[in-house]
Amino acid sequence: MSSAIHELPASEAARAIRAGRLTSEKLVAACLERIAARDRELAAWVHVAADGALSQARALDGQQPRGPLHGVPVGIKDIFDTADMPTEFNSPIYRGNRPRADAASVSLLRRAGCVILGKTATAEFANLHPPATRNPHNAAHTPGGSSSGSAAAVADRMVPLALGTQTAGSVIRPAAFCGVVGLKPSFGSISRAGVKPVSETLDTIGTFSNTVEDAALALYVLSDRPLPDFAAKARPARIGIARTGHWVDAEPAAQATVENAVKRLAAAGADMKDATMPSAVEALFDAQGVIMNFEAARAFAWEQANHRSEISAALLKRLDDGWSVTRAQYDAALRTAQEASAQFADLMRGFDLLLTLSARGEAPKGLGSTGDALFNKIWTQLGVPAVTLPFGKGPQGLPLGVQLIAARDQDTALLAHAHWAESASRAGA
Amino acid sequence: MSSAIHELPASEAARAIRAGRLTSEKLVAACLERIAARDRELAAWVHVAADGALSQARALDGQQPRGPLHGVPVGIKDIFDTADMPTEFNSPIYRGNRPRADAASVSLLRRAGCVILGKTATAEFANLHPPATRNPHNAAHTPGGSSSGSAAAVADRMVPLALGTQTAGSVIRPAAFCGVVGLKPSFGSISRAGVKPVSETLDTIGTFSNTVEDAALALYVLSDRPLPDFAAKARPARIGIARTGHWVDAEPAAQATVENAVKRLAAAGADMKDATMPSAVEALFDAQGVIMNFEAARAFAWEQANHRSEISAALLKRLDDGWSVTRAQYDAALRTAQEASAQFADLMRGFDLLLTLSARGEAPKGLGSTGDALFNKIWTQLGVPAVTLPFGKGPQGLPLGVQLIAARDQDTALLAHAHWAESASRAGA
Repeated sequence: MSSAIHELPASEAARAIRAGRLTSEKLVAACLERIAARDRELAAWVHVAADGALSQARALDGQQPRGPLHGVPVGIKDIFDTADMPTEFNSPIYRGNRPRADAASVSLLRRAGCVILGKTATAEFANLHPPATRNPHNAAHTPGGSSSGSAAAVADRMVPLALGTQTAGSVIRPAAFCGVVGLKPSFGSISRAGVKPVSETLDTIGTFSNTVEDAALALYVLSDRPLPDFAAKARPARIGIARTGHWVDAEPAAQATVENAVKRLAAAGADMKDATMPSAVEALFDAQGVIMNFEAARAFAWEQANHRSEISAALLKRLDDGWSVTRAQYDAALRTAQEASAQFADLMRGFDLLLTLSARGEAPKGLGSTGDALFNKIWTQLGVPAVTLPFGKGPQGLPLGVQLIAARDQDTALLAHAHWAESASRAGA
Repeated sequence: MSSAIHELPASEAARAIRAGRLTSEKLVAACLERIAARDRELAAWVHVAADGALSQARALDGQQPRGPLHGVPVGIKDIFDTADMPTEFNSPIYRGNRPRADAASVSLLRRAGCVILGKTATAEFANLHPPATRNPHNAAHTPGGSSSGSAAAVADRMVPLALGTQTAGSVIRPAAFCGVVGLKPSFGSISRAGVKPVSETLDTIGTFSNTVEDAALALYVLSDRPLPDFAAKARPARIGIARTGHWVDAEPAAQATVENAVKRLAAAGADMKDATMPSAVEALFDAQGVIMNFEAARAFAWEQANHRSEISAALLKRLDDGWSVTRAQYDAALRTAQEASAQFADLMRGFDLLLTLSARGEAPKGLGSTGDALFNKIWTQLGVPAVTLPFGKGPQGLPLGVQLIAARDQDTALLAHAHWAESASRAGA
């Protein structure tokens, strides 16, 4: 192995453990060492279960592999319940909160032989108010959010795999800002039991990793969706370029990254063609916010009634916006979403996948905001699978990503194609 | 007022409170007295917050009305989180569990001026293993489930309003068995934040009350759906009779009740016509179970991994069934559901509402099972609003109900029509 242990992708580490070339205990220890060295600066973690993780790892080292990620440590965004660690949602309201049970997804990881390494920093309730986490590529910049800690921890190779959630753009955006692979699977892929809700219509559990294969293994373990056949090197025949009506709002560097990816993928043999978004899909840029805010206002009813002074101004504004949405407006937004889904399914009969922006540009400077979810909203609302791949750097030296999108529930095919695109992009890098 | 205080419907009680003819404190005290007199036999409650409810009531009596249910006590199925009461899901695994926060729906009730009277008995995790609750009409019979306590408490006039949940038939069936009005609104009407999930695709919060107006007020408070104009006495023009392919599996008394309702509603002026369910809708009798079991297996991953011996045999069987469903089978069932929804929407262009069975027959004898959800599954899976109305009694002297169904999100219209049907059925009773 040429990499340091803590730098190994999850899939490689698991293969080494299975082959007896590595132990889970050594891998966990290497991650803990990296965290000890780096997290004072990056603040990606709010709780590290050092002793518990090491003893879990030792126990797993004595067992037959339970799955393709056996022995691999995972970071968990601190809005997932954990029975053996605090779960605080980055809110003073929940300081010291210790749930009775693990979230279903956490339990599914343990069932598959993963080690839960700790809890990663989140924006307050996976909304707007950022944690102290810094971007590993430049500590003066945000790592994005709301899954800030998961993105930063994986980017800094403190852990090979982490869970996050996306309601607007909270997986794809921080993954792009931190230069890692982010996967937001199709809506409904992974049980949300035990995850603090923001919007039941939108909340989607996703993953952070350093390779597409790692994302695919995590999705397999968490959702039972079949694994792609990576050996097949599935080249997509028809890739649509989805600039969307907000293309002009992206930074030139982000636009250039998409254009570079178009050339690279065309050179690798894909048929690239413009894909114009149907009108109802374009309308989701607005509808997503109506739906998210209406539902969030109600989901946090208890916190507003009992702890209003401990809610950030940014979240209070979103919740107040949500209360000002009428049921009729909310229902109309849901109808738009339904219409958009039908139009999008029609569009995708002509494409294997779409290529689009992952974010507006590089990670913004400062830690006061986690950036803008503009280029993620419509895909979250459509419930379609999305992967962001690191694709070069921008003028500030920070990572840029491109986003690949497939039709609803075509997660396995998307990951196969993303794996091909990952190779194509690395080959020419 | 001719009724005893504890017998008042929620809407009448709230009007009396608003008019100064009653206080919330007196109403709560009357309910507590009824519970004290009756619950030793019926076991509808697992926790009664007597002191807390009285002090909440006194506080509300000193305030301007916050909504149309101001001062009204409500019973909460014990799968909704409550910060000031235990929340145990009828499982030894959660004995003494005290959540940090209220479920969003509980908080919305409090926000509207309702008094949370206590927690009602549920089948284990809102699944199969029944609580000790008895049917108020005959204590040797089940009240149905899984929202057993909510149905029994409202039927016995211990409380005018209660919350439950339906994943297969857990609102409509117990309401019918206990002779009360049950409302399962359209999927997504009421935030499920803080309610223990069984199946995210299916779980729906619903209400138990003694009148349709009460159900409408509760839905208004919980979902912001508009109130029907009850004064308009909205007579539906076109009612479809939905016998479904399982009609032959209903008891003759249940079939006769539907046929009687057909005559009664026709006599009241509705145009009654057979409605044949499209093929994909009939296929939901099976698809619903596939979806529910697959999701439940994962939702209870932590309980299975850590407390398997404390899970009932009936639930373990359901969860094992869920693990044996492949992702491909699950996805196919979801596609069937989507197709069924489209076919059903087409069908409903020809009808204002459907009339169908609420349950297979009267409440079965014994407390070992809560009865069969056969006649509820397809409507839950479609996500369409459903109301059960008490409609006479069967050969064993136990209540029977009929179920009214409308198109998705037509909750307000359904309640208006159900109010008309309620009058029509009472006029001829």
